[in-house]
Amino acid sequence: MLEDSSNQTHFGIKARWIYTANDHQELLHNHTVFIKNGSIDKVAPSALSNQSNIIDLGESILTPGLINMHTHSAMTFLKGIADDQKLTDWLEQSIWPNEAKFLNHDLVFEASQLACLEMISSGVTTFNDMYFYPEATAKAAIKIGLRANIGLLFIDLKTNYASDFTDYFDKGFAFRDNFRDESLITTSLAPHAPYTVSDESFKKIRTYADQLGLNIHCHLHETEWEINESLKKFGIRPIDRLHRLGILGPDFMGVHCVHLNESDLRLIDSNQINIISCPSSNLKLASGIPPINLMIDKAKFVTVGTDGSASNNKLSVLDDLRLFSLLQRNDRNEPKFLKSEDLMDMVTIDAAKSLDLDSIIGSIEVGKKADLVAFDLSNIFTQPVYDPLSSLIYSGSRDSVQHVWVDGQLKFKNKQLVNVDDAESVIEKVKLWQNKIQ
Amino acid sequence: MLEDSSNQTHFGIKARWIYTANDHQELLHNHTVFIKNGSIDKVAPSALSNQSNIIDLGESILTPGLINMHTHSAMTFLKGIADDQKLTDWLEQSIWPNEAKFLNHDLVFEASQLACLEMISSGVTTFNDMYFYPEATAKAAIKIGLRANIGLLFIDLKTNYASDFTDYFDKGFAFRDNFRDESLITTSLAPHAPYTVSDESFKKIRTYADQLGLNIHCHLHETEWEINESLKKFGIRPIDRLHRLGILGPDFMGVHCVHLNESDLRLIDSNQINIISCPSSNLKLASGIPPINLMIDKAKFVTVGTDGSASNNKLSVLDDLRLFSLLQRNDRNEPKFLKSEDLMDMVTIDAAKSLDLDSIIGSIEVGKKADLVAFDLSNIFTQPVYDPLSSLIYSGSRDSVQHVWVDGQLKFKNKQLVNVDDAESVIEKVKLWQNKIQ
Repeated sequence: MLEDSSNQTHFGIKARWIYTANDHQELLHNHTVFIKNGSIDKVAPSALSNQSNIIDLGESILTPGLINMHTHSAMTFLKGIADDQKLTDWLEQSIWPNEAKFLNHDLVFEASQLACLEMISSGVTTFNDMYFYPEATAKAAIKIGLRANIGLLFIDLKTNYASDFTDYFDKGFAFRDNFRDESLITTSLAPHAPYTVSDESFKKIRTYADQLGLNIHCHLHETEWEINESLKKFGIRPIDRLHRLGILGPDFMGVHCVHLNESDLRLIDSNQINIISCPSSNLKLASGIPPINLMIDKAKFVTVGTDGSASNNKLSVLDDLRLFSLLQRNDRNEPKFLKSEDLMDMVTIDAAKSLDLDSIIGSIEVGKKADLVAFDLSNIFTQPVYDPLSSLIYSGSRDSVQHVWVDGQLKFKNKQLVNVDDAESVIEKVKLWQNKIQ
Repeated sequence: MLEDSSNQTHFGIKARWIYTANDHQELLHNHTVFIKNGSIDKVAPSALSNQSNIIDLGESILTPGLINMHTHSAMTFLKGIADDQKLTDWLEQSIWPNEAKFLNHDLVFEASQLACLEMISSGVTTFNDMYFYPEATAKAAIKIGLRANIGLLFIDLKTNYASDFTDYFDKGFAFRDNFRDESLITTSLAPHAPYTVSDESFKKIRTYADQLGLNIHCHLHETEWEINESLKKFGIRPIDRLHRLGILGPDFMGVHCVHLNESDLRLIDSNQINIISCPSSNLKLASGIPPINLMIDKAKFVTVGTDGSASNNKLSVLDDLRLFSLLQRNDRNEPKFLKSEDLMDMVTIDAAKSLDLDSIIGSIEVGKKADLVAFDLSNIFTQPVYDPLSSLIYSGSRDSVQHVWVDGQLKFKNKQLVNVDDAESVIEKVKLWQNKIQ
């Protein structure tokens, strides 16, 4: 069992296996990672170390903290409300009416905390979010102690949160300014989707992105309906429209990309956009299965997100990585078997690169933040271990998470949340909301 | 927390929700299930009860014990050995050579115990197995205390276990006779697959099935390779061949059925066979995605199995039920959304009916065996709960399993194995095998 290292600024983590996610995809055996003031100070063979303050993980694999590349954290408040509806019905009958009726800053703050607790418990140390009241989500991430890239949401609709383009971005940039010194928080621009954002708004967002050096996080080609609507309204497919508006580029993260034809794939290639795949959500909402291997060939990076709790309903990106791999092997266009290292990179270093955060997170390398997860491989679910990474991906699950550190702070210890506000009170607050809704 | 009821023969389980899996698919609220001598004695509203020996589950759902409809339990010894190979390569390069080299009674006994421990921890109370040394698997099930329907394996190959048809069935029937009085053990006939069993052997197996009233458990249409081989060798598809041999019928359980054309589906319909789908295994070995809704329309029952650990690598049928549901929603032939009750029935009462065990297990009804699982819905993974069954299927996982009873005996309590031999020693024995193999 692990002694509490939460108040220690200098300590070591001794692991049987360490997947570094560095450029050489090194898997280290019997090494120790030394942490100093929240950052990785040294990685060395354990045999050479006789320092004190060493945490011995036992038969576990240490990896970079997982990055959940697409979330709507606050949607935990609607988790499971309509598990049997297709995307358009689900949005129009269950999600949007409840959001219109109940959404406010406090709900987003409370429901996002539940999401943060679930993500820590699932080995996630950074999430890439998009939702109303981004400031409330950022506050929740800071309170719980999770790293977050928060989207400055924009949708061409008057909502509880904001009325029009100016109002959305006045609020968004005010939030960004207020949180400028928060080391756990970064921001992106987050236009909701081609079917909810006008040409004019997209053009302004491109200007902001260039001026401020911000990435763009946007739903894209999730359903056939979306593509047909665009063909009706604009005469072209959404991805072509965004291309012509100059929105696409290496700073663009397109979420879903389930329905892609050859011309879409050419535009993905020529613009070198990043794709975030959400396999559980796409299947659960009957949106379909993307042409995974063509995506991997053409995009700058393909990474994985869970999507919000209402459409998945789990925030465990490790479990969705397994599903992504299973679907990839059955890709009807071009079946392939990605190596476990390549899969693991998708939820660590490639995700960090997509977010432009790879200088501080995404791999176990000296100088980076100590965002780390230990996964226990010693139990009946994962034994025997022939290959620790593939055991983690195919036999493991969120229940394999043993310890989690963010910024060198222990947040999850021996399979329990630690150093976070009482999880029970977070659940109780969300239950109060549930009772109002139900 | 639950007090130990393991030595009690009379006790009650008080649950906020009970999914009965009875003919009316009743979901009971605030009821208590009373157990007497291993069987369900009464189900009544909790408010009316003031009996002692009541276990209060809290915010949990009680369901019939899950039935894992297709396993090769002993294959835990090869779990994760070759996670990146297609079925034919995987069998020929990794599985068969290791089985030929290492397989014996002791290994099957030890590795099957690991599988049994994993299944209990995943909410499984009955498994439908097919492997070499069936007696060793049965012994493992009895030792751990799990219910098992054990296949009398036959394959037209000389193996460590047996040399020819007579030898396989001499051993199979001797095992069956020896275990006739073991209440946890039943048997089926288990011809391996159309590509490994001759016409003559299939005909004899049909005779045995009729004479002894035994079901037949057989792999079927798992890969395109299998179908092409049959077309080359016999000029007809495997399912047509089995039909002409008189093997198919309501007592036949065909495992996989990934590749089905219209004529196959007509034969499934006219013969009213049962289909066991193994979605993780089919995806992991790149065998493909079955036409799920057509299968459901035509088969007698469609149920779910995990397959062996080497091809999945989890024995959690709850997690595979979620995957089955997600794939079913994206069926390219006929997308549908099964109700949560219908999904749950697939791994409980429909499975029991496929096995002809529905008079004793599969639902929470008076007179049936107390094979029960309590799933905890109170934690951050499953809160809030709008619908307990869909929360279990989509937000839950093997980590939701709270308590498990088999035959009224508590085997898993407060998320820990109880009343079973030390799990550590089982793992240690399997590690010894792993070291020899690796």
